[in-house]
Amino acid sequence: MRTWICPGSFDPVTSGHLDIIKRAAGMCDKLIVAVGVNYKKKPFFSAEERKSMLEKATEDISNLEIVIFSGLLIDYAREKHAVAIVKGLRAVSDFEYELQMALLNKRLDESIETIFLMTNINYSFLSSRAVRELAANSGSIEGLVPDEVLEDIKRKFGKGGK
Amino acid sequence: MRTWICPGSFDPVTSGHLDIIKRAAGMCDKLIVAVGVNYKKKPFFSAEERKSMLEKATEDISNLEIVIFSGLLIDYAREKHAVAIVKGLRAVSDFEYELQMALLNKRLDESIETIFLMTNINYSFLSSRAVRELAANSGSIEGLVPDEVLEDIKRKFGKGGK
Amino acid sequence: MRTWICPGSFDPVTSGHLDIIKRAAGMCDKLIVAVGVNYKKKPFFSAEERKSMLEKATEDISNLEIVIFSGLLIDYAREKHAVAIVKGLRAVSDFEYELQMALLNKRLDESIETIFLMTNINYSFLSSRAVRELAANSGSIEGLVPDEVLEDIKRKFGKGGK
Amino acid sequence: MRTWICPGSFDPVTSGHLDIIKRAAGMCDKLIVAVGVNYKKKPFFSAEERKSMLEKATEDISNLEIVIFSGLLIDYAREKHAVAIVKGLRAVSDFEYELQMALLNKRLDESIETIFLMTNINYSFLSSRAVRELAANSGSIEGLVPDEVLEDIKRKFGKGGK
Amino acid sequence: MRTWICPGSFDPVTSGHLDIIKRAAGMCDKLIVAVGVNYKKKPFFSAEERKSMLEKATEDISNLEIVIFSGLLIDYAREKHAVAIVKGLRAVSDFEYELQMALLNKRLDESIETIFLMTNINYSFLSSRAVRELAANSGSIEGLVPDEVLEDIKRKFGKGGK
Amino acid sequence: MRTWICPGSFDPVTSGHLDIIKRAAGMCDKLIVAVGVNYKKKPFFSAEERKSMLEKATEDISNLEIVIFSGLLIDYAREKHAVAIVKGLRAVSDFEYELQMALLNKRLDESIETIFLMTNINYSFLSSRAVRELAANSGSIEGLVPDEVLEDIKRKFGKGGK
Repeated sequence: MRTWICPGSFDPVTSGHLDIIKRAAGMCDKLIVAVGVNYKKKPFFSAEERKSMLEKATEDISNLEIVIFSGLLIDYAREKHAVAIVKGLRAVSDFEYELQMALLNKRLDESIETIFLMTNINYSFLSSRAVRELAANSGSIEGLVPDEVLEDIKRKFGKGGK
Repeated sequence: MRTWICPGSFDPVTSGHLDIIKRAAGMCDKLIVAVGVNYKKKPFFSAEERKSMLEKATEDISNLEIVIFSGLLIDYAREKHAVAIVKGLRAVSDFEYELQMALLNKRLDESIETIFLMTNINYSFLSSRAVRELAANSGSIEGLVPDEVLEDIKRKFGKGGK
Repeated sequence: MRTWICPGSFDPVTSGHLDIIKRAAGMCDKLIVAVGVNYKKKPFFSAEERKSMLEKATEDISNLEIVIFSGLLIDYAREKHAVAIVKGLRAVSDFEYELQMALLNKRLDESIETIFLMTNINYSFLSSRAVRELAANSGSIEGLVPDEVLEDIKRKFGKGGK
Repeated sequence: MRTWICPGSFDPVTSGHLDIIKRAAGMCDKLIVAVGVNYKKKPFFSAEERKSMLEKATEDISNLEIVIFSGLLIDYAREKHAVAIVKGLRAVSDFEYELQMALLNKRLDESIETIFLMTNINYSFLSSRAVRELAANSGSIEGLVPDEVLEDIKRKFGKGGK
Repeated sequence: MRTWICPGSFDPVTSGHLDIIKRAAGMCDKLIVAVGVNYKKKPFFSAEERKSMLEKATEDISNLEIVIFSGLLIDYAREKHAVAIVKGLRAVSDFEYELQMALLNKRLDESIETIFLMTNINYSFLSSRAVRELAANSGSIEGLVPDEVLEDIKRKFGKGGK
Repeated sequence: MRTWICPGSFDPVTSGHLDIIKRAAGMCDKLIVAVGVNYKKKPFFSAEERKSMLEKATEDISNLEIVIFSGLLIDYAREKHAVAIVKGLRAVSDFEYELQMALLNKRLDESIETIFLMTNINYSFLSSRAVRELAANSGSIEGLVPDEVLEDIKRKFGKGGK
């Protein structure tokens, strides 16, 4: 069984993330979407909220497991018997950083591959940060995030979410 | 009337900013220089200080309005009937980021254009951050900022501005 | 009167070119679209064919002049009293090259500005070369070039255009 | 069955190509290595020579088919029922170009994915062109190309291959 | 006497740093390795710890002086009669930033050169930050840092170093 | 004795080249400027013309040798006992290509270093190709090439040099 793992902070999940997740899920037997907990960066949404939004947005994808993880991605990937890490690429800055991570991970475990998919052109400008900025300033985020989580995000920002 | 808007944090205004402002003002009927207030980033100079320095540096440009704004740039641009956002470009990292912002703003309001001007070659290495670093370490900033604001900046750093 | 000049080889004009031309024309009083003749690069379409296709594609834009030019762009811009050169930007490689040209042109004539517009996201992958490749291999170019020139391009390639 | 296709000119196959081919073959059910024939670029090795060298270098990989193709890659991929195009990425220039191709191919057939793998760090500087330059100037290419084709390449250049 | 200066935060020194230091030391008469103290960034290791680790790792290089400095690098370089600043380059992001710094320093003192060396290919993915991440998560850092400082780093992280 | 080698096609030498040569000569004991002869690219000026122009432009630099070379640079560098190859860097595209060459050369001979200097900001847009374009179109090249070779270049283009 080919298991791939798709890590991220998903703070919150965007339409761009969802597009990558769908396409990746279609190319492997099982896709693990791994919500990263980083002791150094404080996320806007809690790990549980981020996991819950991912679950709502991906209900119709069957070969998916959504998990929360901390520590080194490569250790977690090995533990889950994943053969590949899958990432979406948008622009050059992404590329540089992701190249470094891929090479580092290759050194830590040569048997685990890193696979890159191009972000859908319609979401090439999209990031979780942009979504948070818009939501915090009452800008419209419709279409930029999965419909299923639109209300969750608005509610959070409505509650003095800034 | 063609109104353009030139947003930035101008913390503080540099000779590079001034060059872009002058050139942009020469290409439209009215240029709004918009000093951004971002609730998440604490600037070194207050919004009022930044606006005041811009005013001193641009006294001889007639078709200019200098304002302080918060919230989404695209909303503010629409409110001011600006037809274009104008930005200076220096290097690739600028370009990547500005490309994302331009595409996002285009999605938020298709009628407002983003225009890029190349930073003057003599200021291609210059940033507000570099000015602050130099001033904080008693380095010379002459020529790197408009003459009119040189003393203001030195005074701020002299007062334990670090 | 603010005259801008939009140079290119337009070999052939694409939907991306047309988008930039329309947006640029909306921002100045007169836009000159200048089809470059370069003694060193042999184009696929003749200068006259390229000009004719541009004319068909831009019939509904009133403040437009389409011309053929050779020699230095900056000389031609000066001769036509253009205050700015306008270019579309797609990706980093574009940016690097265009930055060099803009700086060179600035040195040759400081009074003429170079203005960059971001290519529409839907055409960010599009180039005249890609269109020629597709057409030469019987791929569909519908939507990638203005409808008005679709037949012209197909006919050229049909006639053993390779 | 998941069929992937790995296109290239392989003029000649390098150790970097071979590394990508091995890793890609390990991630799908069948990998088609497609040697491109481009009517516009004259290769140094003939399509048959390039295919033959690939065959020698990949004898121990079982789920591989090596083919020669011309025309549009996306048409060929569809014909072979490939679900993905797989490419190696080295540097930013690669990335820019490959991004454009991936987006163009996505538009031509949305059902076919483009997958990127990072080139092995030890071959990040390696290209077919570099191999040809070295071989043409009697430089050592050992380790830069698969051992199985070393003699073929030397022989070609020895015969006044320049 | 040709004195070069190699600045950095070395938080902690990596195998990539050591490689650049060795190569730079071999190309000048005296190399000053300057551990920067930046009042704005809190390092993980103290300046003294960073200096001490550099000393252990470079014991066999004779023409080396390791110092702690604060303030402007260019002022310090001048004070030490250095004729050049030497830096390792890894990727494009490095390059952009380093280009800006080099141009700024050139403007501050035209007589002091900036020299760039390419990072060894085996360390092209390596950074102090990556080392800290690995160590904080009990990942192996062997080979990524000089053997002489391996225990120092592990001990620091063992002591609740996070 | 520290010998450095500065390779290029110098077709023709520009003010940017001269700036790099002067600065490099000041940092080593002997600088070899090596005019490359490439059997695959036809230069505009002959190797002898290019060497002769370099000689005129560098008459006041004493520790310089100007040579014509063909074949592999690394072989030639070794033959001349050079310890380093020195190159000027302008922009990202330069950087990518030069990085590949540096890594390839490092693999061919680990004992020879590649050193990069930043191109003077005033020449950051300058290339031999730009000079040829300007001269071919009767544009002014004053200041873009060393004064000593201005007439040589004009004469060549005047003689139907296109």
